[in-house]
Amino acid sequence: MKIKRIAHLGIAVSDIDKAQEFFNDKLGLSIDHEEMVDELKTAFVPIGQTNLELVQDTNPEGVIARHIEKRGEGIQHVAYEVEDIDQALMELKAKGVRLIDEVARPGAHGSRVAFLHPKVTNGVLTELVEYPEK
Amino acid sequence: MKIKRIAHLGIAVSDIDKAQEFFNDKLGLSIDHEEMVDELKTAFVPIGQTNLELVQDTNPEGVIARHIEKRGEGIQHVAYEVEDIDQALMELKAKGVRLIDEVARPGAHGSRVAFLHPKVTNGVLTELVEYPEK
Repeated sequence: MKIKRIAHLGIAVSDIDKAQEFFNDKLGLSIDHEEMVDELKTAFVPIGQTNLELVQDTNPEGVIARHIEKRGEGIQHVAYEVEDIDQALMELKAKGVRLIDEVARPGAHGSRVAFLHPKVTNGVLTELVEYPEK
Repeated sequence: MKIKRIAHLGIAVSDIDKAQEFFNDKLGLSIDHEEMVDELKTAFVPIGQTNLELVQDTNPEGVIARHIEKRGEGIQHVAYEVEDIDQALMELKAKGVRLIDEVARPGAHGSRVAFLHPKVTNGVLTELVEYPEK
């Protein structure tokens, strides 16, 4: 399996508009893409070859809402771009790495994504992403 | 102020050798640099134009040890590379952004670093880094 780059860094926020304002006004960074992914509002902030992904939950019982309730706002996951997510998941499974998603599912930007379990990744909730060929 | 890239993603770990093993054996990533920064053992794992920075505390009362005690292992901070850290700190201060370090101090790789307060950055402990000119 070959990790090409950090695709994004997921940041759990309780108010995505306020968060965007901070990143824009204070750090001089701009949003280039917004998308609903299931019940999640997402906004992508490009930085070099990676992105921040601001994520707000519209479901008060959702995974991001619960993360904020438990740990406060902040970095929630890191996403690595791989070329072939099916092959990567097969390889990790064979190596005994615990997976949250054994099969890839749809993500933002038409991608396919899967999460590894933070128990095995030094507490880092880790996402793999495969993008459609352009 | 101009953010050029995410310089690294700081990951608090309790055993840096074990963590390196995971990133190497399971994710196929390699360490390219190890350095003591004050009381912290650090190891850098390059991914594209950014890095993971694994950080282990040698001081049981240190900031990383306390982070792990409180929140477990995991992503502890994100570092943005800027061209001129003194100018960036001046600009942020003028904009009312709360700083942990008002003056830059020495970091890894001969860099100069300063932290912003997570209270104002949506819970993300944020580091600015300026590297020496090559």
